[in-house]
Amino acid sequence: MNKDPDYSAAYVIFYSDSDLEGHGMTFTCGRGTEVCCSAIEALASKFVGKTLQSLTSDMRATHRICTGDSQLRWIGPEKGAIHLATAAVINAIWDLWAKYEQKPLWKLIVDLTPEQIVQAIDFRYITDALTPEEALEILQTNQDTKAQREKWIREQGYPAYTTSAGWLGYSDDKVRRLIKEAKDQGFNVFKQKVGSDHQQDIRRAKLIREEIGDQGVLMVDANQVWDVQEAIDWMTDLLPYKPLFIEEPTSPDDVLGHATIRKALYPHTKVATGEHIQNRIIFKQLFQAKAIDFCQIDACRVAGVNEVLSIILMAKKFNVPVVPHAGGVGLCEYVQHLSIIDYILVSATLEDRMLEYVDHLHEHFIDPVVMSNGHYTAPLAPGYSIQMKRDSLEAYSFPHGSQHQTS
Amino acid sequence: MNKDPDYSAAYVIFYSDSDLEGHGMTFTCGRGTEVCCSAIEALASKFVGKTLQSLTSDMRATHRICTGDSQLRWIGPEKGAIHLATAAVINAIWDLWAKYEQKPLWKLIVDLTPEQIVQAIDFRYITDALTPEEALEILQTNQDTKAQREKWIREQGYPAYTTSAGWLGYSDDKVRRLIKEAKDQGFNVFKQKVGSDHQQDIRRAKLIREEIGDQGVLMVDANQVWDVQEAIDWMTDLLPYKPLFIEEPTSPDDVLGHATIRKALYPHTKVATGEHIQNRIIFKQLFQAKAIDFCQIDACRVAGVNEVLSIILMAKKFNVPVVPHAGGVGLCEYVQHLSIIDYILVSATLEDRMLEYVDHLHEHFIDPVVMSNGHYTAPLAPGYSIQMKRDSLEAYSFPHGSQHQTS
Repeated sequence: MNKDPDYSAAYVIFYSDSDLEGHGMTFTCGRGTEVCCSAIEALASKFVGKTLQSLTSDMRATHRICTGDSQLRWIGPEKGAIHLATAAVINAIWDLWAKYEQKPLWKLIVDLTPEQIVQAIDFRYITDALTPEEALEILQTNQDTKAQREKWIREQGYPAYTTSAGWLGYSDDKVRRLIKEAKDQGFNVFKQKVGSDHQQDIRRAKLIREEIGDQGVLMVDANQVWDVQEAIDWMTDLLPYKPLFIEEPTSPDDVLGHATIRKALYPHTKVATGEHIQNRIIFKQLFQAKAIDFCQIDACRVAGVNEVLSIILMAKKFNVPVVPHAGGVGLCEYVQHLSIIDYILVSATLEDRMLEYVDHLHEHFIDPVVMSNGHYTAPLAPGYSIQMKRDSLEAYSFPHGSQHQTS
Repeated sequence: MNKDPDYSAAYVIFYSDSDLEGHGMTFTCGRGTEVCCSAIEALASKFVGKTLQSLTSDMRATHRICTGDSQLRWIGPEKGAIHLATAAVINAIWDLWAKYEQKPLWKLIVDLTPEQIVQAIDFRYITDALTPEEALEILQTNQDTKAQREKWIREQGYPAYTTSAGWLGYSDDKVRRLIKEAKDQGFNVFKQKVGSDHQQDIRRAKLIREEIGDQGVLMVDANQVWDVQEAIDWMTDLLPYKPLFIEEPTSPDDVLGHATIRKALYPHTKVATGEHIQNRIIFKQLFQAKAIDFCQIDACRVAGVNEVLSIILMAKKFNVPVVPHAGGVGLCEYVQHLSIIDYILVSATLEDRMLEYVDHLHEHFIDPVVMSNGHYTAPLAPGYSIQMKRDSLEAYSFPHGSQHQTS
């Protein structure tokens, strides 16, 4: 389904009356970026002239500035281009706040009180799954021990897996070579793209399992190509190669479909989705329906940090590990913060957790992710790590940047 | 939630090398229209230079031109601004086709063979609820008797209900007066907006029930203001006044929430939703989960005629009456065709069916709806009835039209 992504972003900068700038972006695949930019412009006027403190003192209200506009709701609500735009805007505010506090985003949030975190979340439409009181209880339970987890993360980093191998279209030899290289770099988790050619998927899964042995972890990813029964049938033939999970087996809108697929395949393989899940309300139902085993939140498809926090807390209550999606420009930079927050404040465990890592386009960021022995090291620079280099912003600006001029 | 709609539309015209033009639009509430326009522009280039016949000979493929773009999918898929844009584009193609055939849209479709109709529908992600074979069977079953239903519709029209009364903010006296006026015009079905003030809702429901008597039909509409338990609690206090259904009790994304609400209230009141339901995949689940009693499709939130056909056919299989949403500019003009198609080809009954009617903004259309004794009369002009008058298009074009200039 993602045949020819042209990795892009709709990018937001909040300028302040000091030197500080808040940067945020929403990842896109090329065409359609301009639609997100139009949506960002529709939101921008709501923030001109506001003080940072007026926005950060009530982040729930700040979230509602974007999601509660009674006219803009019609083109969502809380989904599609307007919600991608909201993510860019909200994340830029968190970036500015973290820079103002001179902390990396994860540390800003880890240092908030449980009450402050709960106050940042919009619980509308999820109280039948998680009340503010329940969220507070989860956060309070972990308060006493959070310092030791912060220390651990600062020393060890957050474990990663790579998605660099197993892509459709690569030759068998290239796949073998990529697996060997990744193993040399400390990765033992691999993802195979499936859904295009049934027999080739079976052959490729067999090859990968041979290369990685019983100890390696194989995941498969269908990028939404199947209908429900088709997913079940196709995956049944891949079960001998022990895939940990099938990612995006069908439409991201199909809560009941995912539940049906999971029921048919569990425990032989598990179900993962999230990169296209539009908001907390669909995640809520995926949890309620026992439809997924892994929650792959995207940092800028849902409405930024605030909504991510609500989903992480629901995942904790329903005992589903959060394994963020990171395949796209800037996503690794974003989600390292989210997984660290999840570990220190919410899940308090690394069991079944791994953070996706893609070695791609980090050179455009001022504070790119730093990998070490298969782990993300904790980012230490103030902000949300999403600020791009000025040269990159200028060269890749569409349509006038130098990279878009034909010679 | 819809506090201050500024009724608007993103408008599409397909020009041809003859005098024929295909017109389509998607309804919006003001701010955000420009985002839909940007999305329409992203789709437009795909159609320049195509022949009408190349598009109409395979409407399933034509639908996929819009929904299957591998880059644009990221900002949906099939939801939000890009899907509203798709609706405008697809509907404009149907309008052009119907004008070319010199038939009203409903008659064009009624005259297609069952095979042709099935071929126009994208069954992706719904085959676990409705297969092409099942759709064909539904259509074939009604073929022998469709002529008599067409005759009936041409003579009698399609029954309507009005939503002109019971709005929040009107005085009791005004509501009483509006009800009397509507009854004089032949309407005996009334809708009350609820969810703002609990005690006032109870008092107002009592008043309306007094005015309309046991024979009148009361519906209530919450416009998504409640969480799940809140909807159940609030509605419980309105049950003595026998509302037929509660419309949009909670988030349109919450399939399981609607199912919970329905289970708690059925059969004392029923559940309706649809104007914000993003696509066939959410409708599928609302049917599968027995979450709704009335299916209120919107003609231009889902991807136009093609996707509406898939939803109407699923509704038939799951035995849920289709009662389209029509509260917005152009929506009455659109949905009269859809309900007529549903009656003649799919449902073959008028039981529990009524088409919403709002007496608002029809003066801008070349072929506006014509009401007679509480019924929509069957439109007879070629096309989809959605073409606006040239003067209206010019005067209301944003931002340069005369209506947007301050004196």
